[in-house]
Amino acid sequence: MSYEDLALHTDKYQINMMYAHWKNETHNNIRVFEAFFRKNPFKSGYAVFAGLERIITYIERLRFSEEDINYLKEQEENYEEGFFEELRNFKFSGELYAVKEGTVVFQNEPLIRIKARVFEAQLIETALLNFMNYQTLIASKASRIRQAAPKDVLMEFGTRRAQEADAAIWGARAAYIAGFDATSNMRAGKLFGIPTKGTHAHSWVQDHDTEEESFERFANALPDQSVFLVDTYDTLKSGVPNAIKVGLKMKEQGKSLKGIRLDSGDLAYLSIQARKMLDEAGLKDVVIVASNDLDDDVIVDLKRQGAEITSWGIGTQLITAADQPALGGVYKVVAKYNGKEFEPTIKISGNVEKITTPGYKTVYRILNKEGKAEADYIAMVDEKVPTDELKLFDPVHTYKNKVVKDIEAVELQQPIFVDGKRVYELPSLEEIKSYHQEQLSLFWPEHLRRLNPQEYYIDLSERVWQTKMDLLEKHTK
Amino acid sequence: MSYEDLALHTDKYQINMMYAHWKNETHNNIRVFEAFFRKNPFKSGYAVFAGLERIITYIERLRFSEEDINYLKEQEENYEEGFFEELRNFKFSGELYAVKEGTVVFQNEPLIRIKARVFEAQLIETALLNFMNYQTLIASKASRIRQAAPKDVLMEFGTRRAQEADAAIWGARAAYIAGFDATSNMRAGKLFGIPTKGTHAHSWVQDHDTEEESFERFANALPDQSVFLVDTYDTLKSGVPNAIKVGLKMKEQGKSLKGIRLDSGDLAYLSIQARKMLDEAGLKDVVIVASNDLDDDVIVDLKRQGAEITSWGIGTQLITAADQPALGGVYKVVAKYNGKEFEPTIKISGNVEKITTPGYKTVYRILNKEGKAEADYIAMVDEKVPTDELKLFDPVHTYKNKVVKDIEAVELQQPIFVDGKRVYELPSLEEIKSYHQEQLSLFWPEHLRRLNPQEYYIDLSERVWQTKMDLLEKHTK
Repeated sequence: MSYEDLALHTDKYQINMMYAHWKNETHNNIRVFEAFFRKNPFKSGYAVFAGLERIITYIERLRFSEEDINYLKEQEENYEEGFFEELRNFKFSGELYAVKEGTVVFQNEPLIRIKARVFEAQLIETALLNFMNYQTLIASKASRIRQAAPKDVLMEFGTRRAQEADAAIWGARAAYIAGFDATSNMRAGKLFGIPTKGTHAHSWVQDHDTEEESFERFANALPDQSVFLVDTYDTLKSGVPNAIKVGLKMKEQGKSLKGIRLDSGDLAYLSIQARKMLDEAGLKDVVIVASNDLDDDVIVDLKRQGAEITSWGIGTQLITAADQPALGGVYKVVAKYNGKEFEPTIKISGNVEKITTPGYKTVYRILNKEGKAEADYIAMVDEKVPTDELKLFDPVHTYKNKVVKDIEAVELQQPIFVDGKRVYELPSLEEIKSYHQEQLSLFWPEHLRRLNPQEYYIDLSERVWQTKMDLLEKHTK
Repeated sequence: MSYEDLALHTDKYQINMMYAHWKNETHNNIRVFEAFFRKNPFKSGYAVFAGLERIITYIERLRFSEEDINYLKEQEENYEEGFFEELRNFKFSGELYAVKEGTVVFQNEPLIRIKARVFEAQLIETALLNFMNYQTLIASKASRIRQAAPKDVLMEFGTRRAQEADAAIWGARAAYIAGFDATSNMRAGKLFGIPTKGTHAHSWVQDHDTEEESFERFANALPDQSVFLVDTYDTLKSGVPNAIKVGLKMKEQGKSLKGIRLDSGDLAYLSIQARKMLDEAGLKDVVIVASNDLDDDVIVDLKRQGAEITSWGIGTQLITAADQPALGGVYKVVAKYNGKEFEPTIKISGNVEKITTPGYKTVYRILNKEGKAEADYIAMVDEKVPTDELKLFDPVHTYKNKVVKDIEAVELQQPIFVDGKRVYELPSLEEIKSYHQEQLSLFWPEHLRRLNPQEYYIDLSERVWQTKMDLLEKHTK
């Protein structure tokens, strides 16, 4: 099993629909699908898009092996040989547009658009959502944590609690994009170039006769990594005093103790006391690191109580997005090519929020003269957005509207694949990270607030809106 | 990047401790570590152990590549060449005991025990916990869902919402062990031999001029997979009547409609109405399948309201264990070899539940004459468990005790690796699945209940208990 062997990383119904299309000779029909999510996660006002590089690599390497085909043969006797021949020749030949990783994105706007043979578009749905959903979820969660501690060091420490190995590394990557500084996972460090952090565990302390000896031996081996875990026996009576003793010895030797780590007990109280003890000993530069089931809410509250912590190791709550462990992104057909043009298609639902917005569309970010984002604007791909004067209106309460003048309309979706060929050059992770910072600067703080954010407008062009109304009327008559 | 390239799938602090041990020449010291979890997940009374096969494969293939070593060299200038030489020669040479996959297990009992050079035992901690935590979590969640629908068909449908690709496949495997019947993930099907299920999506219906035509075409292509999704337009007014039309045509042709799937709306009401309509049309064998954010609680409530659903597709809630997305398993040192014998070691904590139970131990399941489990019993590896008469007592409230007679003491941990060699033959997935069923039959239903289960006893031998008390006293004086 090789890591790239992901052709069968799909739901059986995709394979069955591919077969039924092939059997009915409709498999070459061109369709437009969009991937989006219906609700910003964590009650945030926004999300941070991530996962595109993973999707690109998946699509580029997408082939069925003979092993895959033999497996399918065993599964279903109705599958005919011609279908397997189609699979043998399978490669992605369509078009894919997507917003860039690190983009600040919102509910109900198209993030990825696929125009392809239905045969191809169905196959890739499952993996594409799997990758987009997870990395976007974790980047969005990491962004909340970054807001809780804007100037501190944030480290992703979650591997042991991650939902298996892929989650650990792709989660570390997503967190880094959204503002984390480092990960503990060495494989993520190696694969993506993320800085890695980590010093020692309780077992190191327990493995020595005394705590002081354990600190000293660690400092001798790795002085530049000297962050001592001080809660193995008693944080303030034993851990911090021993760290200070060894810190002072290091100072005499011209080295410096880097930090101490608190991993249990009341982090506000302990950090304040430890800070005093370190300062009184003349160790003002020693950083206090905290870990132990931390989350953005906990960090905000600890800071409110004056905790003297400037470096945070975040595990479970980040890597599993424990307060909402799935994003719920979906992938819906929005247009069919009829040989002449793209016909918009809609999915009706008793649940109003599940009704799709039809049409072969794209999305613009509308920036005002000051360069601030006023709204996102969803239009058909062949529409021109008037930049001198644009009317924006709420797609549900259409009487709520405003006119914006002298705007810039920045198309968020970029061409990634055209005619099956990648036309997009992958940015480096550092570029993605700094692009994300630029993105944040486009928005008023009220949209980015952790609690009760002001809703940012996602508007439809009049044509898109009218198309939706027409199709709704047609289908419900 | 190959799938097996997991030597760096570890926390940086493990590598740093390995280096510090090597530098201090303590890296060959033999230590005993135990992996366990402190709290049964989901307020269940038990968990279902899984993940061992993944751990075994990881350990067997564990080597540092030159690429890994070069990466480490770039990361830390203090690392000396001799350390890299140690890594080049690295392989697991220790002993590993574990309970079998599918075993019903409980909080605070040792599930995996490693006796190895501290250099090796530290490296593997992170990946071992990552794998054990996730698969055990999902198997435990799947077990709750199986209890909610003891006789129905249960299908794992979660890939698009899983936390990346590994979670999708290993989660599918864990769910299958704990009683699920199938998965939608084709890769999990291929890799593990799990039966796969899935028919068509809304996009199939939308891709045709009429719903009826879409059903008919699907049935012509794949009659044995004919489960029609009936909620694209209107379940009772359009979907079910169209399914019935096509079902009756299939009947005429000597084929049979297998089922319909409900994916939105009120599943109780819709399934009851759909059942009536199908029955009245003479389609009594057509199964009603449901999906849409289902969970054990929802299933129980739907059944209570008479829902006519006998097949369930479960996605997000299962594959992310959304109500508790991390198990929280830990890995703690319990004994050190001093050249003569294994000295027990304890970790003290202000939080009483985090105090470890010291000693080189194993765990037995105590079965009474009727073959029912009375308690699990943790003893030192060199203790004999008296089977004629055994005193069991609560480790916290020691006055609570009872004597059991004529018992069988079944050691739960099996030797997996001895002197670095695997001595355990991997059971097939079907064997694991049926072993799990046998395991369930050992317990009184009150321990397995979904809500407010009766606590099952996890007791310590007098020697283990006394060792813990002695060390606690020693360290807190």
